[in-house]
Amino acid sequence: MKFIHTADWHLGKLVHGLYMTEDQAYMLEQFIELVKAEQPDAIVIAGDLYDRSVPPTDAVNLLNDVLFRLNVELKVPVVAIAGNHDSAERLSFGSSWYRHTHFYLEGKLPHLFQPVHIEGVNFFLVPYAEPAAVREVLGNPSITTHDEAMKAIIQHMEPYISSDDPNVLVGHAFVTGGQTSDSERTLSVGGADHVSAENFAPFSYTALGHLHHPHAISHPTVHYAGSLLKYSFSEASHKKSISIVEINEKGIAHRTERVLKPKRDMREIEGYLDELLDPQYYKNQETEDYLKVSLLDEGTLHDPIQKLRHVYPNVLHLERKVDWMDSKQKQIYQTVQQNKMSEVELFEIFYQEMTTATFSPEKKKWLELVIDEVKKKESVTL
Amino acid sequence: MKFIHTADWHLGKLVHGLYMTEDQAYMLEQFIELVKAEQPDAIVIAGDLYDRSVPPTDAVNLLNDVLFRLNVELKVPVVAIAGNHDSAERLSFGSSWYRHTHFYLEGKLPHLFQPVHIEGVNFFLVPYAEPAAVREVLGNPSITTHDEAMKAIIQHMEPYISSDDPNVLVGHAFVTGGQTSDSERTLSVGGADHVSAENFAPFSYTALGHLHHPHAISHPTVHYAGSLLKYSFSEASHKKSISIVEINEKGIAHRTERVLKPKRDMREIEGYLDELLDPQYYKNQETEDYLKVSLLDEGTLHDPIQKLRHVYPNVLHLERKVDWMDSKQKQIYQTVQQNKMSEVELFEIFYQEMTTATFSPEKKKWLELVIDEVKKKESVTL
Repeated sequence: MKFIHTADWHLGKLVHGLYMTEDQAYMLEQFIELVKAEQPDAIVIAGDLYDRSVPPTDAVNLLNDVLFRLNVELKVPVVAIAGNHDSAERLSFGSSWYRHTHFYLEGKLPHLFQPVHIEGVNFFLVPYAEPAAVREVLGNPSITTHDEAMKAIIQHMEPYISSDDPNVLVGHAFVTGGQTSDSERTLSVGGADHVSAENFAPFSYTALGHLHHPHAISHPTVHYAGSLLKYSFSEASHKKSISIVEINEKGIAHRTERVLKPKRDMREIEGYLDELLDPQYYKNQETEDYLKVSLLDEGTLHDPIQKLRHVYPNVLHLERKVDWMDSKQKQIYQTVQQNKMSEVELFEIFYQEMTTATFSPEKKKWLELVIDEVKKKESVTL
Repeated sequence: MKFIHTADWHLGKLVHGLYMTEDQAYMLEQFIELVKAEQPDAIVIAGDLYDRSVPPTDAVNLLNDVLFRLNVELKVPVVAIAGNHDSAERLSFGSSWYRHTHFYLEGKLPHLFQPVHIEGVNFFLVPYAEPAAVREVLGNPSITTHDEAMKAIIQHMEPYISSDDPNVLVGHAFVTGGQTSDSERTLSVGGADHVSAENFAPFSYTALGHLHHPHAISHPTVHYAGSLLKYSFSEASHKKSISIVEINEKGIAHRTERVLKPKRDMREIEGYLDELLDPQYYKNQETEDYLKVSLLDEGTLHDPIQKLRHVYPNVLHLERKVDWMDSKQKQIYQTVQQNKMSEVELFEIFYQEMTTATFSPEKKKWLELVIDEVKKKESVTL
């Protein structure tokens, strides 16, 4: 039995103020091609289909379109759960109608944890839920942490866990020791969000969502799929992939990864401004990629972001790698702090910094007149 | 062939700051009972299922639950369109999966207007759309008004309109001359929102939503269902109902109305405060109803809303029927306006209005001290 394990699509995600929907659609187009080629028995999406409880309508249209093509047109069973970014209620709407085409979508925490059977494998669905919600649904007042919640849920599954067939758990959780990145939202503060991997011992394979690195943990049977795309520069070094899992009758799971190529990669470049703007430097690069640029230059630079975007249109973040103020500038700043200079004195320093001309006594006189006039106007207005 | 025509459920509606979800659920429970008793061949919901594009999750759960019971459990075909309050995209999600149980939900304007066939009747679905959207979908640049849009849509339907079987149009529009109420949202300003009833001549029956009165227009074949509940006091006199439509083979439609009883009615009462608080007055009334109270009393009343809510917990609006200021009070107000009294003088008048005690020179002195102190504090803060 072969299934595809994916998670954390985060449709409708904004990265540095930019909607990723076009990049997501591009990636999902490849995903559909992969499904056509692999012909899996099922597709597992382990939560965070959307990036927020009320996603933009473009994202709604995209998810509807992709799921329709996978499940109705290609007739592949789909097993999906809500993650912490999804709205359990909004995602659940209509899910009862999906089952006839073997699209099993669990948004809200169920009262019973009966598995979905696909080609001899039992899939147990655990949508993301706060410990308080689990406590209420299971009527177990002792649950206060995510670990206790998961333990209790798996206990409730026990009568349904088959000893003959392989069992797979689909969940959305933060497994203890997992490697995090900046685009995940913390589940709760102070360690109460961790779930021990030991909980998942009864399962041949645990298909998780939440952490965005496909190797967020190293465990023989518990795995994260990783996110569809890089959603923060802390993930620039990740190699995002889709997991293909094959389980034999004995419940031995074998996992391979397929890397899809994004429309625009997300990466960091570093160098001197002139160097980065040199065609020799960028001629073999994908200049449309989403970039974080670190400049090594010292001293003042005139509008570097504009110059960079001329070559790299999708610079999302720019930073100066070294303290850009040279010692002379530092000294001036300190002087300003210490002596509380007059407006004219401050301007004089600024003028000398920005031009090669001399700040003549005549210029100084003109500036004083302007400053006086502004001050008078201000007092009238007040 | 028999179908039920309903519209304008507005799930998630807030009336005077109060969510109507509980009242809507109560009403829909009766609706489900009516469906069980009538066993119609279809249920038509002519738009505005929700009150807004992003309804509260309670409303999402309620709609999902009601549609599941009607369509999946009772196995009644459902034909529904988006209204101007619904989000076409959000409502559409998953609709492709609904068709196998004969739940036909059209959120977005389709490119083809092929009808849905149910028991020998053709249902043509026209979800609400702005003229600009219709212009784009139909590629017809001359469309600028709702009437032109509807005309063009119906022209596109012509190849599918059967001459043998009855044809029914399901739409969400403002038919010229229709009676409005305060809870409908104007479609566009200056008459461009009107649609002529003549457009619907090819149809045996036109099942409309938008106007909230079930008799919003008087026409042999074009009908509004009216809203599920009264959603504003301008509808207090409406008798909300569910339409049951029977069409014979010749396409002659016969419509009857069934009135459902709301959990709490919405009505207006009028009288003197003492009269309304007299058990003799309210002993035969449903005191839990949503009320607009008009008081006939003259002069000052102490906290009338509190007293009224003690008897009528759901007073949503209170107004004074007559100008409550008597001639003496009016004179004082005018004096205030004319002379710009000091704070102490103003307080003296207020004190005499509110109490039977005398505003003694000693009290006056204390007040002056307090006012001085407040003024000093204010100037320090500034």
